[in-house]
Amino acid sequence: MTPAPKHTARALPAAGIAELQGQFDTRCSVALAVREQHGRDESAFDVPPPQIVVFALSSAEVASTLALASRYDVPVIPFGGGTSLEGQLLAVDGGISLDVSRMDRIVQIAADDMLAVVQPGVTRKQLNDAVRTLGLFFSVDPGGEATLGGMAATRASGTNAVCYGTMRENVLALEVVTPQGEVIRTGTRASKSSAGYDLTHLYVGSEGTLGVITELTVRLRPLPEAVACAICSFPDIGAAIRTTIDIIQHGLPIARVELLDAQTVGMVNKHSHLGLREAPLLLMEFHGSPQSVREQTAIVEELASGHDGSAFEWETTPEGRTRLWTARHQAFFAALRSKPGCRAIATDACVPISHLADCMLASIEDASASGLPFALVGHVGDGNFHFAYLVDPLQPHEQAQAEALNTRLVERALSLGGTCSGEHGIGLHKRDFLLAEAGEGAVSVMRRIKQALDPGDILNPGKIFLP
Amino acid sequence: MTPAPKHTARALPAAGIAELQGQFDTRCSVALAVREQHGRDESAFDVPPPQIVVFALSSAEVASTLALASRYDVPVIPFGGGTSLEGQLLAVDGGISLDVSRMDRIVQIAADDMLAVVQPGVTRKQLNDAVRTLGLFFSVDPGGEATLGGMAATRASGTNAVCYGTMRENVLALEVVTPQGEVIRTGTRASKSSAGYDLTHLYVGSEGTLGVITELTVRLRPLPEAVACAICSFPDIGAAIRTTIDIIQHGLPIARVELLDAQTVGMVNKHSHLGLREAPLLLMEFHGSPQSVREQTAIVEELASGHDGSAFEWETTPEGRTRLWTARHQAFFAALRSKPGCRAIATDACVPISHLADCMLASIEDASASGLPFALVGHVGDGNFHFAYLVDPLQPHEQAQAEALNTRLVERALSLGGTCSGEHGIGLHKRDFLLAEAGEGAVSVMRRIKQALDPGDILNPGKIFLP
Repeated sequence: MTPAPKHTARALPAAGIAELQGQFDTRCSVALAVREQHGRDESAFDVPPPQIVVFALSSAEVASTLALASRYDVPVIPFGGGTSLEGQLLAVDGGISLDVSRMDRIVQIAADDMLAVVQPGVTRKQLNDAVRTLGLFFSVDPGGEATLGGMAATRASGTNAVCYGTMRENVLALEVVTPQGEVIRTGTRASKSSAGYDLTHLYVGSEGTLGVITELTVRLRPLPEAVACAICSFPDIGAAIRTTIDIIQHGLPIARVELLDAQTVGMVNKHSHLGLREAPLLLMEFHGSPQSVREQTAIVEELASGHDGSAFEWETTPEGRTRLWTARHQAFFAALRSKPGCRAIATDACVPISHLADCMLASIEDASASGLPFALVGHVGDGNFHFAYLVDPLQPHEQAQAEALNTRLVERALSLGGTCSGEHGIGLHKRDFLLAEAGEGAVSVMRRIKQALDPGDILNPGKIFLP
Repeated sequence: MTPAPKHTARALPAAGIAELQGQFDTRCSVALAVREQHGRDESAFDVPPPQIVVFALSSAEVASTLALASRYDVPVIPFGGGTSLEGQLLAVDGGISLDVSRMDRIVQIAADDMLAVVQPGVTRKQLNDAVRTLGLFFSVDPGGEATLGGMAATRASGTNAVCYGTMRENVLALEVVTPQGEVIRTGTRASKSSAGYDLTHLYVGSEGTLGVITELTVRLRPLPEAVACAICSFPDIGAAIRTTIDIIQHGLPIARVELLDAQTVGMVNKHSHLGLREAPLLLMEFHGSPQSVREQTAIVEELASGHDGSAFEWETTPEGRTRLWTARHQAFFAALRSKPGCRAIATDACVPISHLADCMLASIEDASASGLPFALVGHVGDGNFHFAYLVDPLQPHEQAQAEALNTRLVERALSLGGTCSGEHGIGLHKRDFLLAEAGEGAVSVMRRIKQALDPGDILNPGKIFLP
């Protein structure tokens, strides 16, 4: 873990606070509770909260806040759902938390073009509720009540990415407010374009360091006519992953394929009374016509049998699917409950799928040897996986142990051609890993872009780059 | 059309020429024929050729050329297959044409991970020949013998993009040499990542203005078990497009869907003796299992019938498919032959599919009124289409007429939420359209990135941005 930098707040003077209060009135707070709620995320860092929180309702308010921050040379930290995992929201340099969660309007749903225009505070659940009756859905599904603005800023993904892609593939265009307070658009509604630099993809994943996302044009997908879900147990993790490789090489358009290790299945059984076999488990979903789904499931059953997969269960009803997906969605909470009073230190790495078994097995061995309990889930179709190490917050050595495991896991992933983050981002936590992964040259290109677009280092300073 | 800027060559002095000759020996040329071959592309501009051409064999040679160019303050224009369409290769400011077409080695094929690592001079045909026996293919298929480096630089696509995406979705990582002569990597082999700014997508589509691509990691796809191809005629273009919308909204994973208008079908018939019905035509391809392909084709036949589609022809044999695709692939040549001595001024726009019929019909009407013959083909699943206006090069007013048609077409596309280029890029030809599309604010962000990464304006100056 990169240690959190020393808190060197760039303070907003009383005149600046008064300006914000004049402009935002009741949508502005210096109350400690509000600041603290905006000064922590799901990460383990302990950093003082931002100096002030404002709740913007429009791009114009975002622009004026950035202009004010530039004038006073204080940081602005864009805030959505507060669900980021690597310290992205923490006010390491003080400043203004710019909460855009109340910009939660679905501006337009263009069903013919299968896209939606939304404000950044719209959550994926909210969008899905709005488009379901049109026979459409939005595919990206990280855990938690994430907002689409935050998901874009972190380049988030989830269980559907193997088939439908991540935010990278599902954001078509953005409206962004620059640190200079200018409102720009980074694309059109056309599904592809060769017109100039790809600013959309530059802002997607920039973690609030280059601009504030104030509107998103996102792709929608047709709701599949039929959905089937299946679980299958394997004698070992290697067999489950080899089955996944076979499925993908076969060209099957599998919608989801998630792995739980035996220990995690045990935690889930205990938590949710599911009675699953406590062995490595693949949890899969298939989308298509009824006939195509039947065909896919038959092929997968055959491929899995070739790797000693057993204890198949198929579910095609919504209730049955919900029961099976409970295993996956409850994994994190089940793990937390398995060690009362613990907190989880979650990691996120992604490797080429051919190295996934090696990487996971070595990381399991390492974690097991440490004696720390852990849960393990993987979006294995993408080569992406998460460990949650369960540490007692009152035992600093456990946290240090978890961080050491995480470091070795990331080093292992990088040595196998992978990345230090599949979907959680860099934030404060992985700045040194980014440097190890990308190299001085590429990080220096990133820094030059940051410097060119945010010369005053107003936007979310201290994130992504080491000081 | 943006007029080509006045030729204001930044000349490489004799000492610089001697240095390059010392380093590149026979892989360096100042011969007029070689320079002229590197000083034109498929665009209609007339610009003096580059001062010297070098043929690099390695990233190190690319780096040393860039370092030399920086020292002498002369432009470097990366050159691959010479197939760009908007003036991207033209030496408007003099300098060195840096030909990387001899860097044509397939470095690695990682079948388990379904990716290939290639040098920039590898062509898509070369890559496909190498991976076919592994049951894989590379999906992006622009016309011509384009190199993968050039395709990435232009963010190219082609007929498969509706299903498999463009270069944007199919380049996983790049090796790039910066104008400072540093060799950087922009990604890993992991299929997704949230690690830092998305440099891969910044260089993809940057048209050689930010760095020189010296290696690409690209996605491969499993060869489909079954392929079926179909043509279907429609009473009008609107009906063909409504059928396409239905297909996509149905969630059918159609692999290709191309439109030819009646006049273009006529040209193709005359050229290739295909005997196709001279009405708007959809040419489609379906990939999947035999059963899934049968199901897809049955659904499409039904959807097309709902819009008065008729004269279906299905082909599942390779020979039959080749015959049908001939119609599409020959369209450009058939058009050229329909007006002896002509040259084609090709346009490229992309709109949301719901506006495609409006945009095409208005553009057809406009072109028909002009009296200039034209061909019209569309990657309609993406909302992308091309007109090729056939002009007599000895009649300047015809060229002016074609450019005026092109301008109105682009303005129409922009007013309908589209882009001025779906796949050909900006080059010299569309710099003013980019400004109209993206706006001053977004273009100024692009300019600041260019300035930050190439402060000496060494790389492909004069392209993308108006002076």
